[in-house]
This record gives sequence, C-alpha cells and structure tokens, in this order.
Amino acid sequence: MAETDRLLEEIRSRNAKTVGLQFPAGLRMRAVELAQEIESRAGVTCIVSADPSFGACDVAEMPVDLTVHIGHAPMPHLRYDRVFFYDLGSPPLKDFAFIDAAAALLPKRVGLLTTVQFRGWLPAVKERLEKAGHEVRTGEPDRRVAYAGQLLGCDYHTATMIEKDVDGYLYVGTGDFHPLGVAMLLPHKPIVIADPERGAARDLGDLRDHILRQRHAAITRAHDAQVFGIIVSKKPGQARMELARDLKALAETHGRKASIFLMDLVSPEFLEGYRVDAWVNTACPRIAIEDVLQYKKPILTPQELEIVLGERDWKDYVFDEIRA
Amino acid sequence: MAETDRLLEEIRSRNAKTVGLQFPAGLRMRAVELAQEIESRAGVTCIVSADPSFGACDVAEMPVDLTVHIGHAPMPHLRYDRVFFYDLGSPPLKDFAFIDAAAALLPKRVGLLTTVQFRGWLPAVKERLEKAGHEVRTGEPDRRVAYAGQLLGCDYHTATMIEKDVDGYLYVGTGDFHPLGVAMLLPHKPIVIADPERGAARDLGDLRDHILRQRHAAITRAHDAQVFGIIVSKKPGQARMELARDLKALAETHGRKASIFLMDLVSPEFLEGYRVDAWVNTACPRIAIEDVLQYKKPILTPQELEIVLGERDWKDYVFDEIRA
Repeated sequence: MAETDRLLEEIRSRNAKTVGLQFPAGLRMRAVELAQEIESRAGVTCIVSADPSFGACDVAEMPVDLTVHIGHAPMPHLRYDRVFFYDLGSPPLKDFAFIDAAAALLPKRVGLLTTVQFRGWLPAVKERLEKAGHEVRTGEPDRRVAYAGQLLGCDYHTATMIEKDVDGYLYVGTGDFHPLGVAMLLPHKPIVIADPERGAARDLGDLRDHILRQRHAAITRAHDAQVFGIIVSKKPGQARMELARDLKALAETHGRKASIFLMDLVSPEFLEGYRVDAWVNTACPRIAIEDVLQYKKPILTPQELEIVLGERDWKDYVFDEIRA
Repeated sequence: MAETDRLLEEIRSRNAKTVGLQFPAGLRMRAVELAQEIESRAGVTCIVSADPSFGACDVAEMPVDLTVHIGHAPMPHLRYDRVFFYDLGSPPLKDFAFIDAAAALLPKRVGLLTTVQFRGWLPAVKERLEKAGHEVRTGEPDRRVAYAGQLLGCDYHTATMIEKDVDGYLYVGTGDFHPLGVAMLLPHKPIVIADPERGAARDLGDLRDHILRQRHAAITRAHDAQVFGIIVSKKPGQARMELARDLKALAETHGRKASIFLMDLVSPEFLEGYRVDAWVNTACPRIAIEDVLQYKKPILTPQELEIVLGERDWKDYVFDEIRA
C-alpha cells in the first residue's frame, strides 16, 4: 500500500539499517508480513516490539535506526525521535444506517467525536447529519490530540471545547470507554454511539450511571484506608510523577501513609502482595475505570482520592484526564 | 537491621533525595514498610518499582538518585550505575536433617551448589558433609556469578567448572529449576536437592527425564515450522540480540522465515496473535523450559532451533545458558 511506499522512502532517506515495528494488539496478525515485506524491499533488518502497545503515549524505545508506530496518531506535545507514524487510514464507509439510527437519538446541535481509525469518515458523517437537519460541530485539535474530533482514552478536549455550542454528541467508533469519559465530564449532554462493528446506535446514559455507582463504591471502600499506593506510569505520555508526589503529600497531611509505585505496564498481578489498603492510579485513566473488578483492593483516580480525604465533594466528581 | 543502616549511610554519602526500591515478588510484603522507614529516617522520597523483578540481570531503570535492588546478588560483568544491592543474608540454619538425608543419596565426591539466599550456609554444610566422609568442592565465581557455588537460572558455571572433580552434586535450596540446568548439562552425574522449605531431600533424575521428553516434543512440533519468531529480551543481563540475528540468518539459509521480537517481560499473552509457527527464546532460559505449557506454539531454546534445522544432533542436546 501507499503508506508502505512512504515508509520505504523514509528508510532510504535516513539510511536506516534496522527498523523497529510496533503494533497494537488488534494488528498483530499483520506484523510478520509487514516485517518480511520491509526487509525484502528495503534490505534492512526489522525488529518487532512485542511489548503491549496502547497508544502514542507509549512509543517503544528500541535499539533501531527508525521506529515505526502503527495504529495511533502522534500526540503533538510529545517529542518523538526517529519515529514514523504508519497511518492505516480509515476503512471505507459503505453504509450509513448506523449513523442514521444514531442521528434519530440526537438533539439538533451535535458535536462529532471519533478515534483515529475512523477520522476519515467525519466529513461524510457531518454532511449526512446536516442533511437530516442537524447543526454539526467538531472540536479542533490541540497539543495532545492530533485531529479534529479525535478522542483519547485520557483526553476529551475536542468534546469539552465545544460544550457550549452543542446539545449532545455523536461518537463514531467501537467500544464504550472513549465516549464514556465525555459522558462523565458532561453529565447533562446525551452521548450516542454509532458503532460500525455492530452496525447499530446506542445511548450511553445507563452505562454512565452504572460506572458512577461503581466509582462511588470504590470511594466508600477506600474511606478508611491507612496506606495508599500511588501508581505512576513510566510511559512518556502517561507519566505524572509530580501529581503523584502531590497526592502523597496530601494523604500525609491527612494522617495517612502513601508510597509511590512506578511501573511500565499497570496490571493487577504486578501489584499483588504489597501492603497497601487502596491504589491511586495516575497512569492511563482507563485503568481505574475499566479494570476495577480485576483488583482486590479499591483503585481510585486522583480526584477520587481527594474525595476520600475530604478535599472534594462527591457532587464535584470529575473524570480523570491527562492534560499537558 | 544492619543492612538498612548501611543503606542509610550510602544515601547520605550520595546526598540522594529520591531512592528507588526493587523487590522480587516474594518480598513485596516488606516494600511499604521499608519505604516508610527509609523516608522517615533519611528524609528522602522512596519510589517502589512495581515492574516484576527476576534478578540482577534486570535492575530497574528509575528516575531516582539511587536504586536499591533487593534479594539478588550483583552480576560482576554488568555495570550498575548508582545501584545498592541490599543483602538480606541467609536465614539461620537450625536443623541438618534435610542435609543428612541428601548426603545419604550422594557419592563420595560432592560439588556444592546453592542460590544467593542460602549461600551463608555453605561452610556449615561442607563441614557436615566432610564429617560424613564426603570430599566437598565448591566452584569459584566468575564474571556472571558473584559467589562460590552460586547458580543462576541462566548460568551453571560453578557446577560445570568442577565437573571433573566430583561424582555428584548437592543443591541446597528450594525449587527445581536451578539444579535442573545442571542435571541437563551433566546427565551422568546425580543431582540431589536438599530443600529447606520441605525439610527433605530428593533426586532430580526423574524430572530430568520428564523435561527431556517435553523438549523432544517441542522440537518435533516445530519441525515443519515455516516462520520462527525469535524472542530477544530488553533486560541488560538477558539481551542476546547478536545471537538472535545469527539464528534468524541460520533459519533463512535453511529456507525458513524468521522475525525478531524484542520485549521486556516475556509472557504468553503478549505473543498471541502474531503469525509465527514456533518461538525461539533468547531471553532468560527458564522461559522456554518452565513456561512451555502456557504457549500455544512450540517455544524452543537456541540449541533446539539448531536441532530443528538439522545443524545439531539430538544426542548433542545441551541446556541453554547465557555466558558473558
């Protein structure tokens, strides 16, 4: 494909001899084929990064002349050294039925949201919605987000920046997590998902309420914790050591103990055995929300620790974001 | 304890402000307590490394002034920058019954082996064996191994160097893996384990035969593999990129395909989805042997790939070691 040609040109212009390739889990089946193609066409040695790849917050450090990161858009505020972002583009949008189904659930003024793999659809979706009588807005990108309307699991800027101009949001994409962040940050706006995998639309209201009950339960369980373990990620785009130090100090002013835990991959089995009463996650915000049931101890967001310590009211609950 | 005092002195002399702590899984329950003690006594901030810690081949990179590595001895050939090896010493050896039981299974000339945590017992064990009429030898350390008689899961130098002077080995310690490597490298010498946890002795012969059958099965399953995935570790003491490149070239001269996979933690779920027919592990040698049943595809050692490709005979089977 054309993107491979663009990569081969980059390899030639850098005179690269070894090339690293980093794939998200969903694209692993293409790794060997692409590595073999690049090796035979460019005369280089390819090295596949087999550490999990979750996003552009986490470009692999590899002993290579050029790292090829596949499946995520660069985060503008991060400095990438010798990294090529291999753009897979968007699949063809053949059928608008799931968009129309979503539009029927939406108010007049709609904010348009998506993830990087469907961003190529936004102009056509906008046109479709406008034909159906909607006013459509798309939030501009900024230092952490590359494309208009793009959501990250840790950054809802393109949604919140147009909050005053829209009465609801259409998220085009699969999965609940990205739009869930918007639903939690903007509880009074309806969020509808147009899901191309299921070919159907759904409203996020019930899930938001379910997650809020879950978060309330985690806060309640952590209420009397004496020792907090504050998790910090090593990944460049997730590392919030300063926040972790602030939270540790905050816990200590309230007579609690806190220790900082630094790690690359945050996973429940790596945190077993430590004598803490509750975890506080400053790494990727998805972890505390999506993986909560996998942890034996309650796992909180930074804002939830503030609630536990009496520094924030439950009515001021906000979803965690990583902002540059 | 005295070791903490020695650490506090090191912190003072370096004027360290932040101190990293790295614990193996079995000592995690002591992490928060030690972190809190160091913070209150030295006025520093401690950061616990929560990535898995398997050995001195893998000292955590942390943004701290001093890293404290707990539970493993340094590997002399590796350069450690601002690392303090916190020596836990050996527990008291109160009862010799399991040593006597092992001695009864051993020939006259005995090589003595152990892991770092029981190394303090060796002089007393030697004396005990000599009183029972044995001649006892202990292999001297070298560039990868810190102490006489010490085994690593990847290095059996202290056993093989005294091979000609002994008729069998006594391994003092828990677990089968360390002495298993010796049993595979030296198939004609009996290896007896004196296990302080079980308080009993056992011979390794049956396990050796079982593992050899398992290895033979893995080699057979990989016989017709067209694509090999060659695993390379990022950990400083396990990284064998040059070997991996050689194995890739060897596979290619035999008309097979091979791609190199670089990773930090080698774990089956991170390798799912890639289109390879068999894995070849150049990281910690334990992985291919101990975890073989967790992998869907056959996972080979470098020497086993040579057998698959017809470059080595099964009768010349050797256990994989990492030698500097």
